[in-house]
Amino acid sequence: MRYKAYLFDVQGTLLDFFEPVSHAVAEYAPDIDAAAFTRAWRTDYFERVSSLTQSVDDWTRVQDLYAAGFADVCGTFGLPRPERVIANAVASSWQRLVPWPDVPAGLSALRSRAVIATLSNTDMATMVNLFKRLGISWDAVLTAEVFGHFKPHPVVYRHALRYLGVQPGEAAMVAAHPYDLRAARDIGMGTVFVSRPDEYGDPALAHTDADAEFDQRVTDIGEIA
Amino acid sequence: MRYKAYLFDVQGTLLDFFEPVSHAVAEYAPDIDAAAFTRAWRTDYFERVSSLTQSVDDWTRVQDLYAAGFADVCGTFGLPRPERVIANAVASSWQRLVPWPDVPAGLSALRSRAVIATLSNTDMATMVNLFKRLGISWDAVLTAEVFGHFKPHPVVYRHALRYLGVQPGEAAMVAAHPYDLRAARDIGMGTVFVSRPDEYGDPALAHTDADAEFDQRVTDIGEIA
Repeated sequence: MRYKAYLFDVQGTLLDFFEPVSHAVAEYAPDIDAAAFTRAWRTDYFERVSSLTQSVDDWTRVQDLYAAGFADVCGTFGLPRPERVIANAVASSWQRLVPWPDVPAGLSALRSRAVIATLSNTDMATMVNLFKRLGISWDAVLTAEVFGHFKPHPVVYRHALRYLGVQPGEAAMVAAHPYDLRAARDIGMGTVFVSRPDEYGDPALAHTDADAEFDQRVTDIGEIA
Repeated sequence: MRYKAYLFDVQGTLLDFFEPVSHAVAEYAPDIDAAAFTRAWRTDYFERVSSLTQSVDDWTRVQDLYAAGFADVCGTFGLPRPERVIANAVASSWQRLVPWPDVPAGLSALRSRAVIATLSNTDMATMVNLFKRLGISWDAVLTAEVFGHFKPHPVVYRHALRYLGVQPGEAAMVAAHPYDLRAARDIGMGTVFVSRPDEYGDPALAHTDADAEFDQRVTDIGEIA
């Protein structure tokens, strides 16, 4: 066992958002490019997250950001502004994510030899209910909401390690997104890059570890050494 | 299913501290009354917790309170002041708690029909590592350390419900300790009192629900309706 604990990014790394979200978009607006809309929606979410001041006591639900973003992205794509109830319904597709095929068995095997925990920017209740429905068990479910900050704020990684009782060098961050791994590396954690060619529905758009920046590169959670 | 989510006190309610702690005390000091010492140590812990100002950023580990308390209780029992390393070693018995016999099967059955989460005043790492070793899985492990406050501070219960995505009336607190259930009831949660006659090694000292204050009384987690 290389590390005592592994912290996992969830959306994109373990779960596919592209398929359920683009499907919901295509059902809502059959005549637009659902793939392009889904990517624009994801970008809108990142922009909202990076401009938002959050705290534990005053937390804006990420799920509400998706709903607000949906209305704006509709405008960009020449669609009329949706009613709030409709925006919420389509945005609920971000809560129906599907595990990549390697994930259930890979996590279960890793959990038998190390502590595994989520470290997601999504709301706590979304993670708890999603993993319960998927039948995936964690030693700890940790999300940005508990810390009052989004990744890559260093307090998220530092407090997560404290909550698991490990030192930075005893833990690795596992993610498909370089910005997340770089932040973990900056506080002394190990890094495992997961290649997810279909994350954005087009392998040409997927993140890579072209510069071999990270400690390990895997295409399957079961390959984590 | 009566509630969507159940929050569990851990120490005393699900896990027996008296047996492992009094055993460690008896090994350390064979000539004293280990049961009386264990009860005094538990009381000392409550006094420390209630006089301590905690926050997420500036958290004193509960495990360190046990070690500090051990030294003081040794004095009360006429024992010499132990070295810190010895106090830590004996205090580690508070991390080796044992499930009451009904707990593993009762929790597993309840988890198949509702969200279950811990809500303990103990440190997060202690809970994560203990339940991993015991092979008991939760939908969420929540402890005072994440909230920066101990129970019965209302923010602990309120934020826990938010993290699970439920309203107060959709959740119940499960505990062997009336103060904990009263605090949960005060914010609108349901209450399940668990009778643990051996919690303090003597049924005459156990908590009861003599006034039928709570919504349900059980002697086995499997009885929760």
